[in-house]
Amino acid sequence: MRRLYHFCLQPSSRKLRILLKEKGLEFELQAENAWERRDALLALNHAGETPVLVEEDGTTIGDATAIAEYLEEVHPAPGFLGTTPEARAEVRRLVGWFDAKFNREVTANLFDQKILRRLKGNGGPDSQALRSGNSNIHYHLDYIGWLVDRRRWLAGEEFSLADMSAAAQPLDARLHR
Amino acid sequence: MRRLYHFCLQPSSRKLRILLKEKGLEFELQAENAWERRDALLALNHAGETPVLVEEDGTTIGDATAIAEYLEEVHPAPGFLGTTPEARAEVRRLVGWFDAKFNREVTANLFDQKILRRLKGNGGPDSQALRSGNSNIHYHLDYIGWLVDRRRWLAGEEFSLADMSAAAQPLDARLHR
Repeated sequence: MRRLYHFCLQPSSRKLRILLKEKGLEFELQAENAWERRDALLALNHAGETPVLVEEDGTTIGDATAIAEYLEEVHPAPGFLGTTPEARAEVRRLVGWFDAKFNREVTANLFDQKILRRLKGNGGPDSQALRSGNSNIHYHLDYIGWLVDRRRWLAGEEFSLADMSAAAQPLDARLHR
Repeated sequence: MRRLYHFCLQPSSRKLRILLKEKGLEFELQAENAWERRDALLALNHAGETPVLVEEDGTTIGDATAIAEYLEEVHPAPGFLGTTPEARAEVRRLVGWFDAKFNREVTANLFDQKILRRLKGNGGPDSQALRSGNSNIHYHLDYIGWLVDRRRWLAGEEFSLADMSAAAQPLDARLHR
């Protein structure tokens, strides 16, 4: 059985769980706390990071972007990247927006500070990070609103990996107080 | 003429300059200091970040990964992603390694602190960042060495986007003192 090594609260792990479900692919989950640096996880992915996908034949893939692109190539239907190079560029631009920019400017400053630091035993949140996150989130929510006003889905007329990347970020309002 | 909006010292901009050259595609460069938030750049890419590619027909693509994948799709020969889904997954994993992990753990702590902060007028480097960067770089150089001992190129037998991502990071030894 296909297996996804994941961390349940990590946006990139959440995105791949959504993608696997949307593609109708069977998989089992193996929970990992990457910061514990378990040897078994390091052997699968030298980066020591989740997510990692292990296919039934043993093919092992690390890096959330590499895993998503691999699943799109090997199981193209239903597809979530778009049907033209230009459409796929727009999906990938927004995937990058949420996976990198939103994550760095909002999630790392709010969710990671309020939740992850406690889980890792690193103490309470850094107040400067909280201020940055609370300031940055408005700009991001405005941009999501701008896109939603003009498009059916974030990257255009079709549901795509961009929507999954956005949905996988922790947007619970209770985090943003 | 195709135009790349870039910042000459930015690894993701450097990677795309290498890729365009390796593919034999003509392009002209438009230098941008993204932190000045010039309206023309914001109009091309809402993230306000370089690199941005504008094709001769006006097609505009932001995000370095989206641009590289677009160029691979539209100009597939010569290709730099690999010939099987598994090979492409390995290339993309290492592209992610250098673009995200190496950049976050090494480049942001050394190059960004020593060079970018000065260019942006943000003062001198943060000593804790320098210590982190100087500590992290050994692990990364060891991993590059481990790969090079076992493979002809970083991701396997063929020169790939992974090699370009690595080469685009500032590895000048003078930065690491």
